[in-house]
Amino acid sequence: MTLQSLLKPRSIAIIGASSNATRVGGIPMDLLLRAGFERLYPVNPKNTEIQGRACFADIESVPEVVDVVLLAIGADDVLAYLERCHARGIKAAIVFAAGYAETNEAEGIARQEALTAFAKRTGMRVAGPNCMGNANFNDNVFTTALLTQSGNMCATVYRMARRAGVAFSHVINTGNEADVDFADYLAFLAEDSATDAALCYIEELRDGAAFLKAAAAFRAAGKLLTVYKVGASEKGAEAARSHTAALAGDSAAYDAAFAATGVARAAELGGLADLAYLHGFGSKIAGSGCAILSVSGAAGAILSDALALNGGTVPTFPESVQAPLRESIPAFGMVSNPVDLTGNLVNSNDFLFEAVRLALSPDDVDVLIVFLPGYFLDRALEQLQRAAALAAKQIVVVDTFALGDRAKLAAAGIAYFDDFDRAARAICTYGAWKMGGAVTLKPTAAKASWPAFPVGEPALSETAAKEALAAFGVPVVHDALVHSEGEAREAALRIGFPLVAKLVSPDVAHKTEHGLIRLSLKTADDVTAAYNAMVAKAQSMPNVRIEGVTLEPMLAGGVEILAGVTRDPVFGWMLTVGLGGVWTELMKDVRHRLLPVDAAGAEEMLCGLKGFRLLDGYRGAPKADAAAAARAIAALCDAVLAGGERLREVEINPLLVLPEGQGAIAVDALVLLNEAAQPEVEKAA
Amino acid sequence: MTLQSLLKPRSIAIIGASSNATRVGGIPMDLLLRAGFERLYPVNPKNTEIQGRACFADIESVPEVVDVVLLAIGADDVLAYLERCHARGIKAAIVFAAGYAETNEAEGIARQEALTAFAKRTGMRVAGPNCMGNANFNDNVFTTALLTQSGNMCATVYRMARRAGVAFSHVINTGNEADVDFADYLAFLAEDSATDAALCYIEELRDGAAFLKAAAAFRAAGKLLTVYKVGASEKGAEAARSHTAALAGDSAAYDAAFAATGVARAAELGGLADLAYLHGFGSKIAGSGCAILSVSGAAGAILSDALALNGGTVPTFPESVQAPLRESIPAFGMVSNPVDLTGNLVNSNDFLFEAVRLALSPDDVDVLIVFLPGYFLDRALEQLQRAAALAAKQIVVVDTFALGDRAKLAAAGIAYFDDFDRAARAICTYGAWKMGGAVTLKPTAAKASWPAFPVGEPALSETAAKEALAAFGVPVVHDALVHSEGEAREAALRIGFPLVAKLVSPDVAHKTEHGLIRLSLKTADDVTAAYNAMVAKAQSMPNVRIEGVTLEPMLAGGVEILAGVTRDPVFGWMLTVGLGGVWTELMKDVRHRLLPVDAAGAEEMLCGLKGFRLLDGYRGAPKADAAAAARAIAALCDAVLAGGERLREVEINPLLVLPEGQGAIAVDALVLLNEAAQPEVEKAA
Repeated sequence: MTLQSLLKPRSIAIIGASSNATRVGGIPMDLLLRAGFERLYPVNPKNTEIQGRACFADIESVPEVVDVVLLAIGADDVLAYLERCHARGIKAAIVFAAGYAETNEAEGIARQEALTAFAKRTGMRVAGPNCMGNANFNDNVFTTALLTQSGNMCATVYRMARRAGVAFSHVINTGNEADVDFADYLAFLAEDSATDAALCYIEELRDGAAFLKAAAAFRAAGKLLTVYKVGASEKGAEAARSHTAALAGDSAAYDAAFAATGVARAAELGGLADLAYLHGFGSKIAGSGCAILSVSGAAGAILSDALALNGGTVPTFPESVQAPLRESIPAFGMVSNPVDLTGNLVNSNDFLFEAVRLALSPDDVDVLIVFLPGYFLDRALEQLQRAAALAAKQIVVVDTFALGDRAKLAAAGIAYFDDFDRAARAICTYGAWKMGGAVTLKPTAAKASWPAFPVGEPALSETAAKEALAAFGVPVVHDALVHSEGEAREAALRIGFPLVAKLVSPDVAHKTEHGLIRLSLKTADDVTAAYNAMVAKAQSMPNVRIEGVTLEPMLAGGVEILAGVTRDPVFGWMLTVGLGGVWTELMKDVRHRLLPVDAAGAEEMLCGLKGFRLLDGYRGAPKADAAAAARAIAALCDAVLAGGERLREVEINPLLVLPEGQGAIAVDALVLLNEAAQPEVEKAA
Repeated sequence: MTLQSLLKPRSIAIIGASSNATRVGGIPMDLLLRAGFERLYPVNPKNTEIQGRACFADIESVPEVVDVVLLAIGADDVLAYLERCHARGIKAAIVFAAGYAETNEAEGIARQEALTAFAKRTGMRVAGPNCMGNANFNDNVFTTALLTQSGNMCATVYRMARRAGVAFSHVINTGNEADVDFADYLAFLAEDSATDAALCYIEELRDGAAFLKAAAAFRAAGKLLTVYKVGASEKGAEAARSHTAALAGDSAAYDAAFAATGVARAAELGGLADLAYLHGFGSKIAGSGCAILSVSGAAGAILSDALALNGGTVPTFPESVQAPLRESIPAFGMVSNPVDLTGNLVNSNDFLFEAVRLALSPDDVDVLIVFLPGYFLDRALEQLQRAAALAAKQIVVVDTFALGDRAKLAAAGIAYFDDFDRAARAICTYGAWKMGGAVTLKPTAAKASWPAFPVGEPALSETAAKEALAAFGVPVVHDALVHSEGEAREAALRIGFPLVAKLVSPDVAHKTEHGLIRLSLKTADDVTAAYNAMVAKAQSMPNVRIEGVTLEPMLAGGVEILAGVTRDPVFGWMLTVGLGGVWTELMKDVRHRLLPVDAAGAEEMLCGLKGFRLLDGYRGAPKADAAAAARAIAALCDAVLAGGERLREVEINPLLVLPEGQGAIAVDALVLLNEAAQPEVEKAA
């Protein structure tokens, strides 16, 4: 269902319209009249005329079925009035009233649930409640949309962006999102031909899948989607949750979601405006390789540091660029990039023009940053204008004196910042966004199926977990579950030595400490002795059920990694990959991705680990079979996607990565289950 | 030698004075006349009057011996004129001319060396060359000094700080620092009663020891020293070096130097001004524990994130604070910190006043941040003023709408920022600076002495290295150097088993690969067999000198760490501590400090490692003897300080840290030597 009538209405009725232009029922009247909106119908039984327009007693008297109705009435009266609007055939409404779920009180929560149910039942699209509403500036020049989950931040970003010279097509504050949610708006904007970029302030998303789809649509259309997300810190997350009363998604899942869909993420709120500002210059920025021309050696050094910190590069110029620069710059000026133009700038009418041309010529330069303090800018402007007119790449002027004429530069297609770090952050984030490829959210065909999940159990046994994953193509260490000394001897001779024996019991947590895991068993007699000793030990412990003993080959060599898939409440399945033990626990050296993940994606994750060199033939060790590990991880992901709602978490730890050509093998696996949704039915089946 | 006459002159002569107030010889005349400076003497043989003052033909004609002479003449004429000034008895000069070392050409470098030599010989203090000079605003209200190594950044920071409301007592651009260097100015400012804070832009320091001393003097006097240092990235460092032509110090050494002296380091150039601005409010900020009052849940979340990112805390309020807040805030407002005041603010004349009092009351709150969008500020001002008048802690208002009256707030002692992230960075950096203790740069008494260093050798042998360190109290694995099968047997029985045997030769690099290291020798026969096999193997290799075989006990268990001391060209000896192997190589998990480092300092470094938990009883392993490791590292530092100029680098790798109570022991040590400065003399001795 499109949001066309909500966001681009041709006719509007305002219930509770007011003559006072500072009140909630008067503000939208005033703004819409100023904007020259014609088919506007104030509704208020107490008036016959409001702000110069004929006023109607009720929605039934309004002479047309309007596209959208604005409800400027108290929460108690909203639902009844919405029913009347629905009866009249109206398809969209905006509810300003507070007093819903944001109160964190039973009455308000129930009121919001009723509103949501109404929207579901009738198909009417309801924006809010507890929102500031939307603005749509009908002007084709402005193509940036602002979409926020906070009224205050809506106003803050709006002001920041206006200062940066960004003008908006749509300004939307989503409020409580009882019906129309963040992703709905985003999906509309992705298809809206008048929108070329969206600036978003996000606290918590309700519908992760819909967000991912809308974000992918932005990317596919080449539209900029830039996001500032709060909640990176514990206190910030707590405050955001309290504010929105939404599901608490994992911060890592948001990171993974934004990475997966190529969202341009602003590290600071002000960065949103800067990214939209850069985007407004068109598509001349292809990456974040920067050339720097500066009249100050210091500024070149500061910009180089700031670019490196933000992931940009300052490639050294080839001699074909350095040589001609050297001819016109004194020996003390650097020409390798950054270029220290020295004061020479003012002595020639073509020096800067020529320097710009040279600096932009290397293939690894995507953007040129020119540091010109305000007092130089006037003298340099004409040369810059000429150079920009010929350049296929973006020129950005940085002037820490804040004296530049932003409009004059913009007219020449030149961007302008008055701060080193803001410029570097914006250029690097924008360049990285541009380098991102198309997003494919491809579904995977199930290659196998899970066996029936046991009802009432919180987990599969290790043996069952490994066998289930093996069906999807995960290489596993097969173990034998034995129940007698004789079975143990027989299985041991079949598996070969050395091997490991483990007592199986759901009731013992630290098996090693209790002597219930025995390593390096080298003969059948070792195995039977271990079997008997472990069973005797377990029998001597109170309340320990013995399910048997597993035997498995003891593997030597290789590098241990772990791969786990957990379910995020907002975005669904997320894969975590890391090296085993201390690497993950102490160094937090892990990578996350949302599913689906294929083998190529899994290998990228492994390569992204700081400790990847441990897999790559570190200190003369054999190179590990990372490709095989990646295939095993991809198979794990396929298995999880095929597993459905009963799966809670699946982990392989360790996945032993053997030397190249020898594969990777899951030594242990964990499959945690959710409570069955309908245990009675399952039991009956 | 004080810089009094340079920085606070009572009389000034300007050589090359000009009537044109935009030229280098006219600008200082103009500025000094405007400032009402009286004892000012323009010198120019071509004029009899300049800018309304009598002009003198030469320095000899000036009627008094001025405190400082400004040379606005070309580089070719500077030295000769300085000689005349010296002959006249003048003690200080400022040289504006360029054409010195900054040209990176032989002529300019020689010219600068001559200038340095002149200053050394005569004792005259010479500022510059290639500088903009200094400004001294004789007003007791302004107590902040600006000290930069770049003219452009001097002007940039000056403008940024003026916008932030900071006014300066001194503005100094140090130029090439041929004589008076950065640390000289800093030492003067540390003692200058009119200076309460210094903002510094640094590219490279020439005299690290003098900087450390001056920085410690700032700390001791409670004066703020805040620094922005370029060169964190490779390209940034290259550009900075090219710009200053100074010694290239290690970036880690700068970090260590700033940490050692408690410098408040600005992460961005603009941060300098923000720190000075906060300092201007006096000493009400004791740390970076922040309470947040906000009329927007979003703003509270954003500020919490930004504070956490910058090392600040947002402590949860005790119930004694939450309970009274809860009474006057609707249920949907958070009261635990951050506090969401909701729109309630405008309904009472005492609500905000009371909320401020409550929020400031917990001991772990150092600063209160109040987020008030501009349109609320007017209504809230009176309550804030009343609250601030009673508060012993600092109140900071953040208004992202930039509508606040900074001056009115400042008058009430309230600081003001219009950006979340700048506010968070400034508060956290300033709070951390305030929490820093006094700096003690204590010399250590040599506890022992090194044996005579071998002349012409680049390193000590492992045995000699360990014995030398042992003399200073480093526990080492003593090895026995043996030269025959019989000596080997005898030494082995003395040392005990198991042990390790290594062939000693300066000519073999990879001893393990050649079978010249044998581990786990368990009996005397094992040892003699190994001895004979290794000697035979070495004899079979071409050009291998055999110096003997060492035997040492083979230690088991413990955690391996490394401790190395290297010499930074600017700051001298720097200690690096890390866990062994991959921790240091792949994860760069190391800590650095400048010497001296005592055992307490070394233990702080170990505790600061991400992998410290490996020493702290990780996964049931015994806790390692970190205290003993720290004592061993401190002994290493004492040894290095006693070693003098011949030492180039000293490293213990590994230092084996045994379980608690069992100590730590240096298994291997490396002592690299510099070329002897006067090898002939040493040979003769």
